[in-house]
Amino acid sequence: MPSWENNVRKVTPYTPGEQPKIRNIIKLNTNENPYPPSPLVKQAIEGIGDDLLRRYPDPASSMLVDAIAGRYGVEPEQVFVGVGSDDVLAMSFLTFFASGREILFPEITYSFYDVWADLFRIPYETKKLDAEFRIVNRDYYGENGGIVFPNPNAPTGVLKRLDEIEEIIARNRDVVVIIDEAYIDFSDGHDGGIPPQSALHLVDRYDNLLVVQTFSKSRSLAGMRIGYAIGSAKLIRYLNDAKYSFNSYTMNQTSIAAGVAAIEDQAYYAECLQKVRDTRKRTQSALAALGFCFHPSQANFLFVTHPDVKAKDLFSALRQAGIIVRYFDKPGIDNYLRITIGTDEEMDALLAFLGDYLKKH
Amino acid sequence: MPSWENNVRKVTPYTPGEQPKIRNIIKLNTNENPYPPSPLVKQAIEGIGDDLLRRYPDPASSMLVDAIAGRYGVEPEQVFVGVGSDDVLAMSFLTFFASGREILFPEITYSFYDVWADLFRIPYETKKLDAEFRIVNRDYYGENGGIVFPNPNAPTGVLKRLDEIEEIIARNRDVVVIIDEAYIDFSDGHDGGIPPQSALHLVDRYDNLLVVQTFSKSRSLAGMRIGYAIGSAKLIRYLNDAKYSFNSYTMNQTSIAAGVAAIEDQAYYAECLQKVRDTRKRTQSALAALGFCFHPSQANFLFVTHPDVKAKDLFSALRQAGIIVRYFDKPGIDNYLRITIGTDEEMDALLAFLGDYLKKH
Repeated sequence: MPSWENNVRKVTPYTPGEQPKIRNIIKLNTNENPYPPSPLVKQAIEGIGDDLLRRYPDPASSMLVDAIAGRYGVEPEQVFVGVGSDDVLAMSFLTFFASGREILFPEITYSFYDVWADLFRIPYETKKLDAEFRIVNRDYYGENGGIVFPNPNAPTGVLKRLDEIEEIIARNRDVVVIIDEAYIDFSDGHDGGIPPQSALHLVDRYDNLLVVQTFSKSRSLAGMRIGYAIGSAKLIRYLNDAKYSFNSYTMNQTSIAAGVAAIEDQAYYAECLQKVRDTRKRTQSALAALGFCFHPSQANFLFVTHPDVKAKDLFSALRQAGIIVRYFDKPGIDNYLRITIGTDEEMDALLAFLGDYLKKH
Repeated sequence: MPSWENNVRKVTPYTPGEQPKIRNIIKLNTNENPYPPSPLVKQAIEGIGDDLLRRYPDPASSMLVDAIAGRYGVEPEQVFVGVGSDDVLAMSFLTFFASGREILFPEITYSFYDVWADLFRIPYETKKLDAEFRIVNRDYYGENGGIVFPNPNAPTGVLKRLDEIEEIIARNRDVVVIIDEAYIDFSDGHDGGIPPQSALHLVDRYDNLLVVQTFSKSRSLAGMRIGYAIGSAKLIRYLNDAKYSFNSYTMNQTSIAAGVAAIEDQAYYAECLQKVRDTRKRTQSALAALGFCFHPSQANFLFVTHPDVKAKDLFSALRQAGIIVRYFDKPGIDNYLRITIGTDEEMDALLAFLGDYLKKH
């Protein structure tokens, strides 16, 4: 091999869920929202004129930052925006996990964490979940270079209580703790304010806490790539320094406009969230009746296993029937399927297929 | 300071040119195209439906990659796309300059190069330009960890001949050489094919060559953030591995659609490019008549100095008159102004002001 290849950073990349190009499938594999975004979003995108297209966007994305700050009752200096929460998390790993000490995250969790750690040569240690797929607090009390986990966790959907999260943050004041809340808006008791178990309630008390959220799931905007982090002004300043050292203008004109419009239509999204929660409840009951086992999910997906059929076989059978779910071929979870909550019609089709399949196997 | 700050990666970020929020100014500071994008672009953005907004984009941006590959007569496997050429260059620094040896770039050049090097802890050495602001070939023949420079160079606008560039690549087969061609489409003799001095003519001969271009300048789409790199399939594979380890979906649905539409309307852009070149020629003559000195620019900006007035004073005076240009307070170029080529009307206003100012000073 030519010697320039010796100088290349070699990595094993993250594998995203498939985005199939065929139509007429039921797509329950990447946790997209089954409902369209607010009509205000499309209007906002259509309103982008030639002058905005031809000019660089505001590098600070101030309109979007201000909208998010207003929505969550924090200062604009406490808000960072990026190209989806993956971009926000990648920049956060690069910025905050630079101590050379091992960072900690759960063994079963968002499978991008170890990829970022490898990309930036950050050492890490993973911690097991308990038998109910819960994150065990005391595992996160030892010396470390930083902590990150999702709440609700992925792909389990299991939610951690805010008092437990606070204990982890309080015992780790010398490192940055990142709570990845991609799915928190789907948790029960969220009435349009800040979800009861969201660590956003803690950002003004802990300057080492960074909360990451996204427009991809609860705001039906996966296609626009908008994520954000909220934390102390000091954390956000460091994060912005790194961002401005990477790419001055990460958010294009359409994503800034789409994000602002989405924030404006809170009522529409509250309604969609309630529909997803209702469908989740109904689907859980139906799956339980079919003999599936799962821990209670507070996200827009279910993580299920069945004592009589292999998850991998079921995954293939579903696929052949035009229903795509997510399967992780990974020790500890290789007999589980992650199923996104779709519309009621989509879940009915799924349940009908599963009923049939179980009768035959 | 709390101890978590000890673990933070501290950097001095790049300072982008100002994006002023006031109207009625003549903005000649960030090298945007004065002409609007092709009408096909706005149509394409308006055609993005709710289903595309709510779903993740194609992580490979295949439609855009295919369009670029078709346009330049290369294979799709030879094309990488990113959020502006800054994103492409940042990922390239991270991926290709990992040897620990010093990378080389000119002392006077795009001021983001040393920022990326610092962010990723890449050692570097800068090489002086000659008295005519030319990159000196022999400076790039010693041992190094990689090479990067723009052609035409920024902020000088000076173009290097393709045979000289080939010599640098040929003598550095053991490292990756990046030619940053953000402005190449504005060079003379570009008739819609591949510009005569573009290193794109060499990509099939040198597997260590990466050519980076952008939609921001010649395609009037700075607001949409679309950049790309073309090189050997092997280079692009490494770059994609790093990209998929950072953020699976960097290009949102609107930027994919806008990029494809822009590629389709080659004739429109060829016309705009000719207008910019004509205005450049006319402006150069007028500035020369006013006593300004500059080296011939092949970009959409001029880098000028005047023997009788200080660039810094002129910059402030222009600003007060509502004309914004770019000034770099940096040794060697601190008596120069970089002036973007705007419309004929904008350049007339600039020239009128300069004529007046020089009479008074």
